[in-house]
Amino acid sequence: MADLRGGDLSRLRQLNSLTAIRALRGAGPLTLSALAERTGLSRPSMKEVAGELIDLGWVEEVPPSPGTMGRPARRYRFRADSGYLVGVDVGGHNIRAALSDLDGEILAETRQPVSLDAPLEERLAAIERAVSGCLTLGRVAVSDLWMIAVGTIGMIDVEGRVIYSAAVPSWRDLDLAGRMREMFPCQVLIENDSRLAAMAETRRGVAQGAKDVVFLHVGRRMGAGLIIGGKVHRGFGAAAGEISMLPEARWFDAPEHLNGCAVVPEGTPPEDAAGFTLAAARNGDPVALEAVGRFVDDLALGAAAMVLVLDPQVVVLGGGFSRSADVLLGPLREQLERRCMRMPEVRASTLGDECVVAGAIDYAVDHLDEQLFTPERGPLPLTR
Amino acid sequence: MADLRGGDLSRLRQLNSLTAIRALRGAGPLTLSALAERTGLSRPSMKEVAGELIDLGWVEEVPPSPGTMGRPARRYRFRADSGYLVGVDVGGHNIRAALSDLDGEILAETRQPVSLDAPLEERLAAIERAVSGCLTLGRVAVSDLWMIAVGTIGMIDVEGRVIYSAAVPSWRDLDLAGRMREMFPCQVLIENDSRLAAMAETRRGVAQGAKDVVFLHVGRRMGAGLIIGGKVHRGFGAAAGEISMLPEARWFDAPEHLNGCAVVPEGTPPEDAAGFTLAAARNGDPVALEAVGRFVDDLALGAAAMVLVLDPQVVVLGGGFSRSADVLLGPLREQLERRCMRMPEVRASTLGDECVVAGAIDYAVDHLDEQLFTPERGPLPLTR
Repeated sequence: MADLRGGDLSRLRQLNSLTAIRALRGAGPLTLSALAERTGLSRPSMKEVAGELIDLGWVEEVPPSPGTMGRPARRYRFRADSGYLVGVDVGGHNIRAALSDLDGEILAETRQPVSLDAPLEERLAAIERAVSGCLTLGRVAVSDLWMIAVGTIGMIDVEGRVIYSAAVPSWRDLDLAGRMREMFPCQVLIENDSRLAAMAETRRGVAQGAKDVVFLHVGRRMGAGLIIGGKVHRGFGAAAGEISMLPEARWFDAPEHLNGCAVVPEGTPPEDAAGFTLAAARNGDPVALEAVGRFVDDLALGAAAMVLVLDPQVVVLGGGFSRSADVLLGPLREQLERRCMRMPEVRASTLGDECVVAGAIDYAVDHLDEQLFTPERGPLPLTR
Repeated sequence: MADLRGGDLSRLRQLNSLTAIRALRGAGPLTLSALAERTGLSRPSMKEVAGELIDLGWVEEVPPSPGTMGRPARRYRFRADSGYLVGVDVGGHNIRAALSDLDGEILAETRQPVSLDAPLEERLAAIERAVSGCLTLGRVAVSDLWMIAVGTIGMIDVEGRVIYSAAVPSWRDLDLAGRMREMFPCQVLIENDSRLAAMAETRRGVAQGAKDVVFLHVGRRMGAGLIIGGKVHRGFGAAAGEISMLPEARWFDAPEHLNGCAVVPEGTPPEDAAGFTLAAARNGDPVALEAVGRFVDDLALGAAAMVLVLDPQVVVLGGGFSRSADVLLGPLREQLERRCMRMPEVRASTLGDECVVAGAIDYAVDHLDEQLFTPERGPLPLTR
């Protein structure tokens, strides 16, 4: 008979706690019997585990359901409000932030416009205001903020440093994580914006459950995020998804087909130009339709390169232009069918401009899970 | 105290057996003490587990090391020869096969030339001869053959059916696994040849230990195999790596720069043409060097698309043309440096033409591990 050592037993105990938390997260309040059934633990073991989790602050008892017959059963719920997370989207023209509980449910959102050529400190100040605004809206104290996850334009290195942004000149050689930590006393994560948007699609968007996804981050700038085997693919040097840097893929300047279209009224600010062309195309304007055709040709070429390389289950048309999916999706599908060996499903995002903040929240939730809810990390800490 | 059920205990026992086998595989014979140390089991538990594995035929005792002082210690080894595996490479012009033991060590190899336009049955007969030849060379009975893994040209679907091959007309709509099973009474696995070659590079080639690898299968036909997160990436419909199908990536016809070079003597068989050009380039012939330059330009474009999308740690120049790495590697690196955001390591394969059979063997070993040596599969079977 193989021997069981002390280490094995305490590991088993930990596994039981984690199994219980996993069963409770996202679910409503559960009775002891329901919890025991879902975890496979015996009722006495389950009761002991629940008591421990209450002591640590992860779980609380809630009153029995109203109208329960007989002796009312205890019910337990995960304390998703024992801490808070913030997701930030640092774009060229906007800073967005969203506040969520530990389950990733979004409780408040803010947006701060910022000029493309704003100096570095101005952009950082806008980030601070966007995050603080979220906390105020959600009535959450800074001390209850556990983690901020930032999705940003530009190349990010493995340490979360912004190396370079083709679109925003001031956004380079920046220890963004360090600067964020000076503003807020909590953990800070930095990730590429398109990667986070891709993640959001698999968690709460149109690619839920898909393991291999190519996310097309289509808007005034073009980017791509990859999900491979259910995980965000970063690459060895965190430089994956940069197909727009290949001139032959014709992505970098693709939005110029829309911006420079003759239907755009003179004097239109550059950030609104593409919207005019897409709207005119929707109304059947032949000049606008031709411009959209040229744009989709270029979009499809880079997309086809990724589809042929990866053979994903789903391609998501996301980013700001996904609001014009009615105009873009048909021709995109046609072009991909012509170019690809096996045609993936092509779906339009419903997250629109919120894709990056939503993904940042999902990333923070994952990071939290990894830190707290994996047995390798040792026993669960107190929530404070 | 959390309760331990019977299921947990038998699972623990199984885990101990697997841990012991893993410690022994690939290692030389180990004493009980060495095994206990490597597995973390107590000596009495280890002895019991070893006894069970001997009964099942997975492990055997070997005589003590010669010259051991004092009471000689028992030693145990994994019985890698309790079964055999065959890897097959179905190429356009050659069928290769290799025989290995359960550790994946290659014991015998065969090659059968076959014409590109040979009828289907002729190609299948060549496969049968190549496999049988291996068994004969290795003095292994068909009944000791546990598994055949085939790497083949062409698109393979998730069931291992050959759908289509651009190069070999007869190679389509073929239940290759079924046909192989009619020839040999064992398990048969079918996989894309470039994917298996990529796998071999990470197991026994120049990409050992790398998690993200782009393998360039460069020869008379151009293919690519991807390793992502340490695993072969197949894609949702088993169609990953097909960058050569994108005309703008300029891969499909790239070898024509070498085949059609003026240095190739008239009347040279098409399969030898590129070799002449590469040899002339090695000797500094300017016409040949120009042709090689054009070939590498095209090779680098498709490779850069994959590097920008995936940001791999290593790019391997593999396949038949990797024998001319001295001529190709320099210009390939230069082109990639010009085109990529982050430059990966670029290494030349040392497996040459054996990359696919070696990968097929590695694939079979993995499959065996998955079938036998994972706790989810239940207790270990007898070796017969």
